[in-house]
Amino acid sequence: MKRLRALHRRKGREEQGLFLVQGRKPVTELLASHFPIDSIHATERAARDMGLRDAHVHPEHDLERMGTFETGNEVIAVVRMPRNEVPRTPQGFTLALDGISDPGNLGTLVRIADWFGAEQVWCSPDCTEAWNPKCVQASMGSLFRVPVRYGELAPAILEAVGADTWVYKAEASGEDVFGVDLRRPAVLVLGSESHGLRDAVRNGPGRSIAVPRFGAAESLNVAAAAAALCMEFVRQGR
Amino acid sequence: MKRLRALHRRKGREEQGLFLVQGRKPVTELLASHFPIDSIHATERAARDMGLRDAHVHPEHDLERMGTFETGNEVIAVVRMPRNEVPRTPQGFTLALDGISDPGNLGTLVRIADWFGAEQVWCSPDCTEAWNPKCVQASMGSLFRVPVRYGELAPAILEAVGADTWVYKAEASGEDVFGVDLRRPAVLVLGSESHGLRDAVRNGPGRSIAVPRFGAAESLNVAAAAAALCMEFVRQGR
Repeated sequence: MKRLRALHRRKGREEQGLFLVQGRKPVTELLASHFPIDSIHATERAARDMGLRDAHVHPEHDLERMGTFETGNEVIAVVRMPRNEVPRTPQGFTLALDGISDPGNLGTLVRIADWFGAEQVWCSPDCTEAWNPKCVQASMGSLFRVPVRYGELAPAILEAVGADTWVYKAEASGEDVFGVDLRRPAVLVLGSESHGLRDAVRNGPGRSIAVPRFGAAESLNVAAAAAALCMEFVRQGR
Repeated sequence: MKRLRALHRRKGREEQGLFLVQGRKPVTELLASHFPIDSIHATERAARDMGLRDAHVHPEHDLERMGTFETGNEVIAVVRMPRNEVPRTPQGFTLALDGISDPGNLGTLVRIADWFGAEQVWCSPDCTEAWNPKCVQASMGSLFRVPVRYGELAPAILEAVGADTWVYKAEASGEDVFGVDLRRPAVLVLGSESHGLRDAVRNGPGRSIAVPRFGAAESLNVAAAAAALCMEFVRQGR
């Protein structure tokens, strides 16, 4: 129990190299993936309903304490973190994220990447940790399908450019994306709402693009901007 | 203080017909709008920095207690709720929301509506309350620009159809939006992720449209779907 509860915090996850997947739907998505599962803990009812033969069965009040949700914890998988690999050279379409600090935003972005067929997500080292329970939750299983890699973006982008990849940087001051010919293989780079892209990325190679504004809002949140740009990306790629 | 703290909860807001706007940026956006302000409360520093001559100045520890944020409350406006008017017949582009229960999602949707130039947002009566502090926060000022109206969607849609408005319903099973000729004036209807559109709306007039999927995610969250569909909407409308 103590070892499992330590996984509620980043320090514990990094020390043990494990993270938690909680809830019926996320655990079902996990089981359909190739992620190595360390153990599964469930109430008797959840284990039976989900046909989890190898789950450790616990009383409900223990499950409540094991999970990070306020209530309703009934199935929790302890999962081994994937090794952080070197960013792969894009073949199709890569989403690169610079300084995304909110775990819910990061999970939502991975889900958007998954929906629009991105082959991978690159995260700058100061992005929030993908194995945070809120990020795992918001990704709705997409974290088990789309590889997420952490590393400095500027050198990864330079290397991709060397391998004939197109780089598009989302910036408020960028060109109206509807007037830009979007090509592949490509990296689409998005920064945080509050800080935008860091200088090394902003001043590096690539074309600045923007979602045109038709109303009065000052900005879009990063997930909405990602969805809008991915939409135009896939439209042109058809 | 007691009267103000009662506005943390929906019951208090409804009884007093007032809601809270918190933080420098939202209050600045509020001041640029036509929303009738009941009173402004600020620390001495925030009042000075923002040039708020009519603000009630309070010690910092009182401001902390007045606001709903855990820390950093320094300026709070008490604002009169606008009257809920009858939905206006769409002239341009209306976003209609069916059963959106999360205040953060609702605020983000209003912000997306504002960015893409929607003239109004219609909410079904069971949508969360737009004056919830989390919704106000997530809308980033867009709530003061885009009128939000609550009412049954099915009759409003029928009436709009009678006035030659096109109706598009976002549904997973809908037609690929890239193959649909999107016309105006229009209502774009989105339901909650968990429940979709209610029967009266689903079985009513309008064309079902969907964001095509290129990867493996089972769904998009409602804000991402709205951003993607609005993107295609404005593209075709140019």
